[in-house]
Parts: sequence; C-alpha cells; structure tokens
Amino acid sequence: MKTYNETMYGLGSKRSTIREIFEYAKLRSTEIGKENVFDFSIGNPSVPAPKAVNEAIEKILKETPPVELHGYTSAQGGKDVRERIAANYLKRFGVELSADDLYMTCGAAASLTITFKALTNVGDEFITFAPFFPEYKVFVENAGGKLTVLPSDATTLLPDFKALERGLTPSVKGVLINSPNNPSGVVYGENTVQTLAALLKKKSEEFGKPIYLISDEPYRELVYDADTTVPCVMKYYEDSIVCYSYSKSLSLPGERIGYVAVNPQASERTGVYAAICGAGRSLGFVCAPALFQRVAAECDGMTSDLSVYKRNRDLLYKGLTDLGFTCVYPDGAFYLFLKAAGGDAVEFCARAKKYELLLVNGEDFGCKDWVRVAYCVPTEQIERALPLFQKLAEEYKRI
Amino acid sequence: MKTYNETMYGLGSKRSTIREIFEYAKLRSTEIGKENVFDFSIGNPSVPAPKAVNEAIEKILKETPPVELHGYTSAQGGKDVRERIAANYLKRFGVELSADDLYMTCGAAASLTITFKALTNVGDEFITFAPFFPEYKVFVENAGGKLTVLPSDATTLLPDFKALERGLTPSVKGVLINSPNNPSGVVYGENTVQTLAALLKKKSEEFGKPIYLISDEPYRELVYDADTTVPCVMKYYEDSIVCYSYSKSLSLPGERIGYVAVNPQASERTGVYAAICGAGRSLGFVCAPALFQRVAAECDGMTSDLSVYKRNRDLLYKGLTDLGFTCVYPDGAFYLFLKAAGGDAVEFCARAKKYELLLVNGEDFGCKDWVRVAYCVPTEQIERALPLFQKLAEEYKRI
Repeated sequence: MKTYNETMYGLGSKRSTIREIFEYAKLRSTEIGKENVFDFSIGNPSVPAPKAVNEAIEKILKETPPVELHGYTSAQGGKDVRERIAANYLKRFGVELSADDLYMTCGAAASLTITFKALTNVGDEFITFAPFFPEYKVFVENAGGKLTVLPSDATTLLPDFKALERGLTPSVKGVLINSPNNPSGVVYGENTVQTLAALLKKKSEEFGKPIYLISDEPYRELVYDADTTVPCVMKYYEDSIVCYSYSKSLSLPGERIGYVAVNPQASERTGVYAAICGAGRSLGFVCAPALFQRVAAECDGMTSDLSVYKRNRDLLYKGLTDLGFTCVYPDGAFYLFLKAAGGDAVEFCARAKKYELLLVNGEDFGCKDWVRVAYCVPTEQIERALPLFQKLAEEYKRI
Repeated sequence: MKTYNETMYGLGSKRSTIREIFEYAKLRSTEIGKENVFDFSIGNPSVPAPKAVNEAIEKILKETPPVELHGYTSAQGGKDVRERIAANYLKRFGVELSADDLYMTCGAAASLTITFKALTNVGDEFITFAPFFPEYKVFVENAGGKLTVLPSDATTLLPDFKALERGLTPSVKGVLINSPNNPSGVVYGENTVQTLAALLKKKSEEFGKPIYLISDEPYRELVYDADTTVPCVMKYYEDSIVCYSYSKSLSLPGERIGYVAVNPQASERTGVYAAICGAGRSLGFVCAPALFQRVAAECDGMTSDLSVYKRNRDLLYKGLTDLGFTCVYPDGAFYLFLKAAGGDAVEFCARAKKYELLLVNGEDFGCKDWVRVAYCVPTEQIERALPLFQKLAEEYKRI
C-alpha cells in the first residue's frame, strides 16, 4: 500500500523528455567534450538579466527601511508595486488596470495554477491548441479540471477555429492561449485574436455565461521583427485574464516573479479577482517574493539583450530552410519548430542525435511530426551545428 | 450563476480577524495618533534581518556568473544549497540528511501545501491540536484532506494524549504539530515529543501503515531561555517530515524561502520525496527563489537579533501575571496566550479595545477563552500598554 499520493509520485518520479536530454547532454559532454555536443533542448534564457536588475536590487537594499525591506507585503503584492505596473500597462498597451486587478505571483507556473484554481469547479473543461506547453495539463488537473487539446492549422500552427467552434460546449470554462508560443515560436496576430474573441463572445452569449480567455504570456516581449506585435488580449475580449512572468523578458527565471491581471471589463471582475486571492491563499502563494516584486516594478517593460536571440533566430531559420527543412517562421519566443523529415519526430531526433544534435520531439507538445529547436544558445553553437544539420538533411535525401 | 470557484471566492473575500484588526488600527491611528494605538495583532518580525543577509546578497550578486545568478536551479532547489543545509542540519541536530531529502520551497505556506498534496488521497484525515494556525485547515483541504482539531491540556496547552489516542484511527494520514507554537508560544519538550512518537509508532504498527508526523517549524530558533530546546523530531520518530521557513529566524517573511525535509529513516522515504517533487510541480512551485536559496545556504542557523523578543516576552509576561492575568509561559515564538478574564474572549477583546489595546481573540485558533498577544513590537509599546492592561484588569475586578 502506498501511503502517499500516487499521482504526485508519478509527477515527481517521471523524468520529462527535456530533462532526459539534458542529462544525456551532460554525460555525452564528458565523453566527447562539451564543444562537440549541440544541446538545443533547454528553453532557458542564455543572456543575463539587464544591468538594471542588479542596479535595482542595490537601490532597493539601500533605500528601503530595514524591517520593510524583506518583510511581508500584502497578500496580492505591494500596492505601490501593483500601481506602478498598472500605470505602465496603460502606457504600453492602452489598457487601464488598477492595482486591484493585479495579483503578484511567484512566476509563470504560479500565475497559471492560481488562475485555474480560482476558476475551476470539478469537471470544468479548458481548451488549448497543439502545440502546447505540457505542464498546462498538470496545472488544469491540479485544479480539478480537464484539459482538451485541439489541433492547430497544419501549416501556420495558428488555432483551427472550426475545431474550436465544435469544441466550445457549455462545459468549457476557458480557452488557454500562449503567444509567442512555446514550442512553435508562432505569434497570434491581431486577426487571430479578433477571430478568437468574436467566437468566444458568440458562444458566451449562446451559453449565457462567460468563457474565459486565459493568455499565458511569458514570452510577450520576445519578438524580433519591426512588424511583429503581440496584441494585448484585454483590448479584444472582456473576459480575459493575463498570466505573466518576468522570467524570459528580464532573464530571471530562478527568481519566480510574475503576475495575474484580470481584465477590468470582465463580467464578474470582482468575484474573479477575489477567487484569485483565495486560490493564492489555498495553494500557499500569498505575497510573492518581496525584493523581486520591487525589482519588477522598477524594470517592468525592460528586456535583456534580445539581439542575440534575433541573430540566432535569423541564422537558424535561414540555415535550416536553405537545407530544405520545413520550419514555421518563428516570430517570437526562442524556439523554432521544425517539421520532422520523414514524418516521425522520434526517429528524426534519434538520427539527429547521431550527429550530436539534441532536439526535442514534439510528442509532449501534442505534435508527433514536429521537433523543437531551442535557440537560446551561443550563436557559435548554431554556426557549428548547421553543417551537422546538413548531414542530417543529406541522410534523409538518401532514404 | 457564479463562473468561478466559490470556495476560492470565499477564501479571498473574507477578511481574517487579524486583518480586520490591522485595518482598524490604521484607521484608529489617523484618529488619535499612532502612539496611542497598541496593536498586538500582527505576527510579523519587528527586528530587521541580520546584516549577514544583505552581505550575502551583495556577495552572491558579485560572485555568481551572470546567467546563473538569476537562472533556474533544479526543481527541488540548487544541489549545492541543499548540500550545505544538509551538512548544517547534521551539525546542529545530529541528523544526517542528504541533498535528496530536502526540497527548497517558497516559504512556510508552500512547505505545508506541498507536503499535504504529496501525502493526501481524497478523504484522508490529518490531526492537529488547538490552539492552531488557522491556515492549516485551508492547506489540508486544498489537498483534498480533512483537518481534525483535538484539544490540548487546558493548563499547559500541550497535546491531550488521551484525545489523540482516541482520535488515531486508520483514516488518519498524519499528525501536524507546531512548536514553538503560534498562537500559544508553547514549546513541546523532549518528553512530549517522546510520548507523541511512542503513540504514533504503536498506532502505525497496529494499522500496518505509517502515520506521518508533520512538524511545522518556522519558529524553531525563537526560544529565549537557556534551558529551552526545541527537540528535532527526526531523532524521535522515523516517519516525520519537517516544514521549515526562514521567515521568522532571519526576519525575511517577504522573501518566501524555506524547505521540506523528509526523514531519511522514513519507511517510504523515496516515494514520499518523489511525491513532494510531484506536488511542487502540480502546485506550480518548482525552483524556489534562486537568490534567496543561496542566501539561505549562507545564513542557515543564524538569527536576527532575538534579544528584543526576549526582553518583550519577559516584560509582558511579568507585567500581565503581576496584574493577575493567567498566561501560559511563552517559551518561544513571539506570542503570549492570555486566558480571557470572564471566560469570553470576544468580550475581553472588545473591552481591551476601549483602552486601545488590540488583541486577537482565540476563536480562529480553536480556543474561545484565550487571547493572543503578539509581542513582536517596540518594547516601548509594551511599557506604555501595561498601565492600560491594569485598567482592564481593574474593570474585570469590578464585574
């Protein structure tokens, strides 16, 4: 007899595919040298936090009264912090938030677990689109809900709206989107968000209850072309909730700081925000880390040096398409999604591994015939990897 | 129709008694001046973090490679961090932990929600003793369990072992203790822990399954007399789990850093630890705040200046007992538990309020005839409050 929770045991003892590759890369490095292993598996910022982060820490250490400095803030985060972020949200996105629409969280995962816990009654359904970040399923199920994964358009990897229209039944509590997307790098443009909003509005009216749009936006600032903008969902759909984290924009994933923002136009704004406060309490998340709340307020809207990611993205996309690979053009995040030559991603990754190219097959993301290449790596790694991708391409031509 | 979770709404919209008092204190201060309001409601460290904390931050900022500095650590916390805390645990308590018995958490609440989530199958029962920290109920219920509150001895406020023996049925998954105790300040001495361990061992054998002892120890270092020691439960009972936070010992409650330690002698050690890792993942708690993980490793075992609390404790206890009030001698934490004169704590607090003495009635802690006085305040506040307590005592003599 197991005396603990077996679902939790399962979650804690099964290594993820990415983790497997990471461990393999470490082992392989000791065998053939780190410079000969081309690890494209991990989605970790490879550029440091902007100088402003450590400068903000120094300033906060110096200027905050000693007991207050590391003391509790209010459960939903310091009021001054939330006010500053709200003011900046207006400036950046033209949406007027108040401090009481924001709940500071301990990072992206917390933003999501709190939001799902706040919204979900047992059995509620949430919809997302493949490819998707696999922890979504864990987070929805933690709240007692069920995640349904719908397909995307096979070429653009934008939502398949016909599938969505069929999938939107009265048991759907919300739709979860992630743009710029992990793992595809795809950004949902204004048209996509408008179409999505119109469909959700129609179905909400039909069912007489709001269907929430939950927008997971840790990669919001990571876009590389002048004509790429990430639309602010709050401007397009009232019953929307934004889950944000500073992990990627400021390169501080270890510090666990982000927020949930409830659209002030939401039909049950006050109730939803109270439920978010309650969920934070229930999960053990009151008062996000205080020092980094203040850092977030100081640095909101800044980014680490994104030029490295842009250079990598351009180099990798051009290199791979020149070799004949099919890739979705990665507008943002730091991932490139590559169609597995031959159609079987597991086999493709196995063949790539023979050339020491470590890629993640798309199965965990809900796309069996795609492969994720994380390009948050030194540029030189990409330059030196392209000839190996060429060998891989040639191998496939011979098959 | 509510479209969110009503339990979460309830948790988020109901103000706690302590919060009510806090808001009242603010309001009242504007009316009669802050110096005339004697707020003994909040259990927040009133002395700053030791200098070593900010020194550690400066050192870590300077010495850690930039990308690593604010980057992810492994899900359960940096291995070096866990190794250093484990080594110190051996030195301090004579218990040999390995890094893989420790899971770094985002503070005390996280330590508890993770532990309950890891252990609980729906319907499992956990036992604690009154008086108890009211969020325990929230945390147990979040995991799908049920909290049973048993009485303590009416005089010592140590566990009532007869009640415990009756309460230990096969549906009990674990017993939760908190020593030094919030709200009573009572410390469970070696005899108490030994008796508890013997009873749990007997019942575990009888039921053929471990009953876990969960020890919530945020106040572990806050004891004030040379002959008071807080026994390390791991030395007395194998199936034990320690939930720790640095919030009180290092005065950094806002930074959310603590750990869960699984007894390496636990009968299902590996499974329980894996379930804790899984629960962390499920709740959204992987990788505790990185900078403060490192600060914890540097400062583990240190404390902020506890002499202020000791001075306050001595002054308040002597003052109140001299006035004829019945108090439990507060061995630790920074709370004094006072028997409500007249027997009705709500009325007692209302009468105290007329003298601007803001106390918390024990109802929320499961003790209707006691009152909590938090003495983590400037010493002068106690000196100036004692004459008001005298007036209160005199009022009760007249009744």
